[in-house]
Amino acid sequence: MARPRPLSGFPEWLPAGRLVEQHVLDVLRRTFELHGFASIETRAVEPLDQLLRKGETSKEVYVLRRLQESEDEASAREPEKGLGLHFDLTVPFARYVLENAGHLSFPFRRYQIQKVWRGERPQDGRFREFTQADIDVVGADTLPYHVEVELPLVIADAFAALRDVGVPPVRIMVNNRKVVEGFCRCLGLDDVEPVLRAVDKLDKIGPDAVAELLRVETGADPALASAVMELVGLSGEDESVVDAAAALARRHGADDALLDEGLAELAALIGAAARQAPGTVVADLKIARGLDYYTGSVYETVLVGHESLGSVCSGGRYDTLASDGARTFPGVGLSIGVTRLVSRLLGADLVTATRSVPSAVLVAVADEEHRAASDEVAAALRARGVPVEVAPSAARFGKQIQHADRRGIPYVWFCGEQHEVKDIRSGEQQAADPATWAPPEEDRWPRVVPGTAS
Amino acid sequence: MARPRPLSGFPEWLPAGRLVEQHVLDVLRRTFELHGFASIETRAVEPLDQLLRKGETSKEVYVLRRLQESEDEASAREPEKGLGLHFDLTVPFARYVLENAGHLSFPFRRYQIQKVWRGERPQDGRFREFTQADIDVVGADTLPYHVEVELPLVIADAFAALRDVGVPPVRIMVNNRKVVEGFCRCLGLDDVEPVLRAVDKLDKIGPDAVAELLRVETGADPALASAVMELVGLSGEDESVVDAAAALARRHGADDALLDEGLAELAALIGAAARQAPGTVVADLKIARGLDYYTGSVYETVLVGHESLGSVCSGGRYDTLASDGARTFPGVGLSIGVTRLVSRLLGADLVTATRSVPSAVLVAVADEEHRAASDEVAAALRARGVPVEVAPSAARFGKQIQHADRRGIPYVWFCGEQHEVKDIRSGEQQAADPATWAPPEEDRWPRVVPGTAS
Repeated sequence: MARPRPLSGFPEWLPAGRLVEQHVLDVLRRTFELHGFASIETRAVEPLDQLLRKGETSKEVYVLRRLQESEDEASAREPEKGLGLHFDLTVPFARYVLENAGHLSFPFRRYQIQKVWRGERPQDGRFREFTQADIDVVGADTLPYHVEVELPLVIADAFAALRDVGVPPVRIMVNNRKVVEGFCRCLGLDDVEPVLRAVDKLDKIGPDAVAELLRVETGADPALASAVMELVGLSGEDESVVDAAAALARRHGADDALLDEGLAELAALIGAAARQAPGTVVADLKIARGLDYYTGSVYETVLVGHESLGSVCSGGRYDTLASDGARTFPGVGLSIGVTRLVSRLLGADLVTATRSVPSAVLVAVADEEHRAASDEVAAALRARGVPVEVAPSAARFGKQIQHADRRGIPYVWFCGEQHEVKDIRSGEQQAADPATWAPPEEDRWPRVVPGTAS
Repeated sequence: MARPRPLSGFPEWLPAGRLVEQHVLDVLRRTFELHGFASIETRAVEPLDQLLRKGETSKEVYVLRRLQESEDEASAREPEKGLGLHFDLTVPFARYVLENAGHLSFPFRRYQIQKVWRGERPQDGRFREFTQADIDVVGADTLPYHVEVELPLVIADAFAALRDVGVPPVRIMVNNRKVVEGFCRCLGLDDVEPVLRAVDKLDKIGPDAVAELLRVETGADPALASAVMELVGLSGEDESVVDAAAALARRHGADDALLDEGLAELAALIGAAARQAPGTVVADLKIARGLDYYTGSVYETVLVGHESLGSVCSGGRYDTLASDGARTFPGVGLSIGVTRLVSRLLGADLVTATRSVPSAVLVAVADEEHRAASDEVAAALRARGVPVEVAPSAARFGKQIQHADRRGIPYVWFCGEQHEVKDIRSGEQQAADPATWAPPEEDRWPRVVPGTAS
């Protein structure tokens, strides 16, 4: 077999890169669990009709077929009854909630870290297979607003816990659908959906093109389009942005209960964020999120200094995550694009690992007849939580030390009447007892640390 | 949407079940890392021609197609260039080794814990989507025999580390292909493959049917078939089983270098296992493993008392895991069927979790105006590693305690001038300082413990 080439859009890491990814996942898991989120996993597949319910995403779905399934079997099955790979974790979570509602206590707090698949054209930071880490809180029939304040602060906590290994600071941009919707309705733009879709393109096509789009798509006259552009141009870290939006609304005679509710909610979110995660959360009225199911707060997150990468964590409030006819389940959720984040951390050398193998110690083997003695030392060290491997061959000791060195293993152990352990970085060698010796804590496991670019 | 029903063969766990699965995965990861195995993950898809190289597994593969891919595009592509979901972690690992050989140090020790997919008919313990946990050591051109001794003992270590939560003991059954092959060749059965396939069916169809199969498939006369049946009937925990096999061979005039090598290797494995994991490893000469690529040791593992579940960990030595023409990569590997194991642990109530949510503390909310005070207490506790959630609503305290009780959260915190914390199991309530209080260690996180059937 010739040397295989990577598949575009399906990233894989070498062991050192995987250590960085594992650290990110471990920190996310710990943060989510400290905030009381329970882990679940769902199957990778969903019925096609469920995956296509929202319409817009149909182009992205990978459809499955068993190789030995006959053409007849396949065509006899209604196409929408087939299975596809999930393209996010929200659709499967909604299904999981409906399926298991009788066994869950609401509000139900869950996190979910899994691969998802989208058949899109791969680009920088955009993959066909990638890992998402989602948190959601879902209520039965009702879900109070304060959850919309809480969740972006959990995300702020998670990213803060990654700062010391070289992950850049994040800016979480928040908005509230009710503000834009209330404002537009007051001004006579009843169909808000095309407004949100146009505004969502602001970073891509610029304000003039968006204003033009507003005129073409919504029939807004230039004054109206300009008022909308003025609103979505507002941003800021404190509640003054809310005051500015209220003043703008008054100036345009917009007086609407929904708008007021949205502004009050946005103010509450910004106020809490300023206390609990100062400098992290920004109200940005252009944040629209194209998808139509958000009904309150919406969130996007950029790595400071890496804004062109796009959002590394997005989400919002949806009044109907799922419904079984009898009950409706509203939710608030955010999804971290772990693969997008990690690919940048590795690609830009922001984060790295101190070594690529777990072993802190290589136990040397004097000759194959005495391998059992080396195995015993290794077992004694492992029993006290020291990661160890035994040399693969009884080569001369110089070669065994080279074997450790190539892997970044810091210690080589020599068995004998009197055991000795050598720190191969300093060359220092000293007597040691397998029943008591341990490496310094910072050498025990590979550590994830800032890279050269941090 | 009506209440969805589970998909047969695609198991999902409720949060408490997921805690059991996470504990199993955490213990496996830690054990593998203590033995110096590095983590990798590979993409879920491989080119179809790679998945189908071995022939036999073609019926199991799920083929992917992008939903919007036109019929023309799909039919213009050669079918074998399409993508399928991997059905094990060995094929992708072999490809990963070839693709990255220049960046890896050999022998390369890796573990890999991922989902795999097989389009088989679902049965008890047999799924269409399931998690495997694999360890392999792969060498460049050579790989010494002692790795075949080491790897099943790593597995023994991993299962031993799961005993205290109620996982039953395991029996690891080992054999060596060279023994059966050498024995058969000496007796004139040059085509060993059908012999192995027939022997592999022993547990399913019984010795008489296997003997008959040997006669039909290999042309062995009754005496020859009976000699083979005698050999594969041998098993035992110490080296006497090897002596018995050697005596049997002599009786039949079998004198073969390969047979002797196989017997010596098997004796070495049994000897080391008796020292390092007494009572766990058994030589069992009927272990054949149907697949053709094993060339030395082969392994199967059963849960004691749950033998009918089938093997929960299998593998062996393969002289050619991968080859790029210039170099050949021999390997030894074992694969744990995590989903099969966990489904039994949960289904038979062998293992359970002390609660289904991470939170040790619910911080009560006196009224919505004072939610910020409760948030502050929660943040202070989390900063010291205590998992906490804040009550979702400022209901009367009785309802908030009920909320905690329903989730198994052991402590409820009441804010005030003087903070107090209540153990809702004992009813005991005492003053507490958010800056210093912590629950007893056994209450901090949900624990995974033996179930009622353990």
